[in-house]
Amino acid sequence: MASETEEALDPRVVRTRRDVVRATGELLVEDGWDAVTHAAVARRAGYAKATVYAHWPTRLDLVEAAVELICDEADHPAATGDLRADLRAALADFADDLTHGHLDRLLAGVVEHANEGDVVARLRTRLYETGTAGMRAVLAAHVARRDVEPALALLTGSVLVLVTFEGRRVDAAVLDDLVERVLASTTPAGSADG
Amino acid sequence: MASETEEALDPRVVRTRRDVVRATGELLVEDGWDAVTHAAVARRAGYAKATVYAHWPTRLDLVEAAVELICDEADHPAATGDLRADLRAALADFADDLTHGHLDRLLAGVVEHANEGDVVARLRTRLYETGTAGMRAVLAAHVARRDVEPALALLTGSVLVLVTFEGRRVDAAVLDDLVERVLASTTPAGSADG
Repeated sequence: MASETEEALDPRVVRTRRDVVRATGELLVEDGWDAVTHAAVARRAGYAKATVYAHWPTRLDLVEAAVELICDEADHPAATGDLRADLRAALADFADDLTHGHLDRLLAGVVEHANEGDVVARLRTRLYETGTAGMRAVLAAHVARRDVEPALALLTGSVLVLVTFEGRRVDAAVLDDLVERVLASTTPAGSADG
Repeated sequence: MASETEEALDPRVVRTRRDVVRATGELLVEDGWDAVTHAAVARRAGYAKATVYAHWPTRLDLVEAAVELICDEADHPAATGDLRADLRAALADFADDLTHGHLDRLLAGVVEHANEGDVVARLRTRLYETGTAGMRAVLAAHVARRDVEPALALLTGSVLVLVTFEGRRVDAAVLDDLVERVLASTTPAGSADG
């Protein structure tokens, strides 16, 4: 796409793209995948429907651009070096993303639409990895390499089901309990049997 | 609804309902919530669209009836009394429901459509409780009461993220590892500090 690079230099095009992708992301997290239509995006962003179609011919193109932007802009709490404090902060951040950031709806969208092809599978991986990157980094710094993946699945999975399927508020006491349970079966990074 | 009871006695009505609800369930697990339209359901079940509208005026009515039927018909492996064997069997059954039974898509559907009201919230609870009932029963029989809920969240959550978001095949070795990690922080049912 030769024109892509030229167009990208035009500040009006850059602004249009940013506005449209941001409007798409808002629709996606507020009302889900099905709310993302060219008409709804154009209305919300304040551009003509034809403009939206010109840059993103399909709904999946719109969803893809919005998910990429959401992931690009995601941030995580800074690590302090204290394993338990950092894990709790990363888990609390993940729980907050699920509820207030509507990560639960974004993840559900890519699972519901999984049979629409490779792009959706890639978005699913991108969302999951972005949402769990903070926790993975903390674990990698403190526990044996063989413990990282199971501990990550246990921590993220338990918070996901408590928040999303049981509708539970995961306060500090719940998070601390989960962290202690998971750490009970890990060995420190660099230990003889790590 | 007086007519509901009378109608239910008519075997033709019973058959129509069963056919339509089953067709709806097939559409739901194969293609997701959005595939459930009155037209698609009527076509698949072999009835007139007006018949479908007469019994289930909205798409949510159709989805609700299908999810209830799927949950009513769910079965779980029989418990043997061996904690580890029963937990592994229950987890393997849950993983199989996620992949082959498309429980992942059903769960994703209710999360994506969560802002459509109380019926969806009830279906979410029904699906999650049905999918995890086997594991909950095994845990309740063997571990201290205070350990049941966290252990359930850790086990179901970890399998959910491994299967649904990481696309991992959870074989016996993976399940055994998760079971041992979770049991490491539980105390047996009936013990002094349970």
